[in-house]
Amino acid sequence: MFELIKTENRARRGRFTTAHGTVETPFFMNVATAGAIKGGLSARDLKENGCQVMLSNTYHLHLRPGDGTVRALGGLHGMTGWDGPILTDSGGFQVFSLSKLRRIEERGVHFASHIDGARIFMGPEESMQIQANLGSDIAMAFDECIENPSTADYVAKSAARTVRWLERCVAEHERLRANPDALNSGQMLFGINQGGIYDAIRIENMQQIAGLGLPGYAIGGLAVGESSEEMYHVIDVVEPHMPTDRPRYLMGVGTPVNILEAVSRGIDMFDCVMPSRNARHGHLFTSEGIINMNNRKYALDTGPIDANCGCETCRNFSRAYLRHLLKAGEMLAFRLMVMHNLHFYNKLMADIRQSLDEDRFEQFKTQTCDMYGRRI
Amino acid sequence: MFELIKTENRARRGRFTTAHGTVETPFFMNVATAGAIKGGLSARDLKENGCQVMLSNTYHLHLRPGDGTVRALGGLHGMTGWDGPILTDSGGFQVFSLSKLRRIEERGVHFASHIDGARIFMGPEESMQIQANLGSDIAMAFDECIENPSTADYVAKSAARTVRWLERCVAEHERLRANPDALNSGQMLFGINQGGIYDAIRIENMQQIAGLGLPGYAIGGLAVGESSEEMYHVIDVVEPHMPTDRPRYLMGVGTPVNILEAVSRGIDMFDCVMPSRNARHGHLFTSEGIINMNNRKYALDTGPIDANCGCETCRNFSRAYLRHLLKAGEMLAFRLMVMHNLHFYNKLMADIRQSLDEDRFEQFKTQTCDMYGRRI
Repeated sequence: MFELIKTENRARRGRFTTAHGTVETPFFMNVATAGAIKGGLSARDLKENGCQVMLSNTYHLHLRPGDGTVRALGGLHGMTGWDGPILTDSGGFQVFSLSKLRRIEERGVHFASHIDGARIFMGPEESMQIQANLGSDIAMAFDECIENPSTADYVAKSAARTVRWLERCVAEHERLRANPDALNSGQMLFGINQGGIYDAIRIENMQQIAGLGLPGYAIGGLAVGESSEEMYHVIDVVEPHMPTDRPRYLMGVGTPVNILEAVSRGIDMFDCVMPSRNARHGHLFTSEGIINMNNRKYALDTGPIDANCGCETCRNFSRAYLRHLLKAGEMLAFRLMVMHNLHFYNKLMADIRQSLDEDRFEQFKTQTCDMYGRRI
Repeated sequence: MFELIKTENRARRGRFTTAHGTVETPFFMNVATAGAIKGGLSARDLKENGCQVMLSNTYHLHLRPGDGTVRALGGLHGMTGWDGPILTDSGGFQVFSLSKLRRIEERGVHFASHIDGARIFMGPEESMQIQANLGSDIAMAFDECIENPSTADYVAKSAARTVRWLERCVAEHERLRANPDALNSGQMLFGINQGGIYDAIRIENMQQIAGLGLPGYAIGGLAVGESSEEMYHVIDVVEPHMPTDRPRYLMGVGTPVNILEAVSRGIDMFDCVMPSRNARHGHLFTSEGIINMNNRKYALDTGPIDANCGCETCRNFSRAYLRHLLKAGEMLAFRLMVMHNLHFYNKLMADIRQSLDEDRFEQFKTQTCDMYGRRI
């Protein structure tokens, strides 16, 4: 399913085939938590914005509208109208970051819905069942997201349990796919490497899950407060133990500089809420760093957000109009600014791929980080 | 500027030329209060939705971002990117409905901003100056919006003052247009008929303002709580005294049935926040009446809002998806539902025009009101 086209040092240019189309790697997934991009973007907007893969959240969709409802609507593809590849996370991260009254046991996790307090249980089997109902192209293994820092003892025990959970995920995923009516018949299951900031645990865990021969692997448990240097160190430690013929996904990362650094360390896939969340606060990515659209100095600025950007917002609207809409609380502000930031990320990935095609990625990375002033 | 193409009984089919293009009448203006349609619609969306004329609010834009700022950005056309005709109201209605600490005198109105309490004065001259800065194609005269009901004595005095204000508006409008740098060089000024629910005052007022030979006339002070029958009665009383060679605008009206009834009484122009406001609450116009998208029965409904509708929302998204987005508080819900409701209104006007072209408006009106069950 994954074709490694070429490499430049450790950076990789590839092609990844899913049940809903082929994806050029490296790529960035646009986050549609509850089946819609925050800020009022539709599937059509994502297509126009150069998005290749949409990411949705198992936890949110399980709670609302319910994965049974999503399945009845033809899965996420049928419900949202997005006909490209979709990745769903496992729900694990949100169970640990959003829900209340958590209790973890070998079987899985008991928690209370952050919406209405309803008591819910989710384990590896439940996560696979929900993701089957969502009908995503890529399902993620159910894992525990530990706090950072945690003791080596706790991390080791958690990582070992996550491996046992992964084996149960694999079994349940296969069982569900055997159903002739399954929405997940073409779905791939990715394993997730854990181990906190402990090199030995990370390596042992990666070796164990690589042995399962899954179609893709992620590095999880990062982008939770550690420094960028710690993150790069974990990639450096884990990457040599990741299969070269499978896509590698760095979960929840990150800034444009983070992405460039991770690509240079052999990562192929990314996702992050940063572009859409920043946009909703008026913080916009440009080729010269992040600008704050709340700033009074833009009140009469008739230029686009970024003169080098070709997104719908920059082609049609001025900084002054965007600032006015933001100050007036108009939804159009959020829509136009989210479109810009997502376009910025999707364009960055396209530029990375082109530089790899032309054997000049390292040069592109250096120039781009310098251009951003390493401020983003 | 206004060409009356044909009539069917009192209903009129016409063509109205403005500085930013020709408009087919009768038409409905889409309300972009602060220079953007609520719900995240841009100028491009309005075009795709069949909107002919955008309406923006003088009061809101004067307060934020300030009409001086709008002027510096090239007026509303330059700021918003909408290149079609724009009508601005006078600010009068909002001064009386939104602001606090009002004090009315012959010169104008003192009031406090509803945003930050700033003390502001607006009279006929100020309203014309602001609308000149906004650069709209049609400016509305500054008038007092009285409470309903008010005594005949008060209404008569207010209507007389509104005529004096109108004469000052005309003088100031001419003075401003003479400036070679004026954004309002092609701007038309419409007069507004007042008189509450008192036939004699309405008629006398209409005769007085018709004498000024303005390029268009509105009926104001309706849609403020009176019954539909009272509204139709006022139109019946005033319309015979309106010039036939000028467009007639019924301000702030109304439901689809209201519009059909008003067209049959000789009205050409409408505006109302109802389609966008209703949409934000999930109340959607269909060929069978208003449906409430919050209703649980739509949770698994894979059909469009209205099988007879060709809007982007109905072409691409199901009731079930919209209900999910609405329940999840996703901005996309508001955007898609506002697009549908505005399309419904714009399509209604296109159907009205076609029926007039084909000499079957009365039949269309009866069939359509019956189809709605007179529920909207």
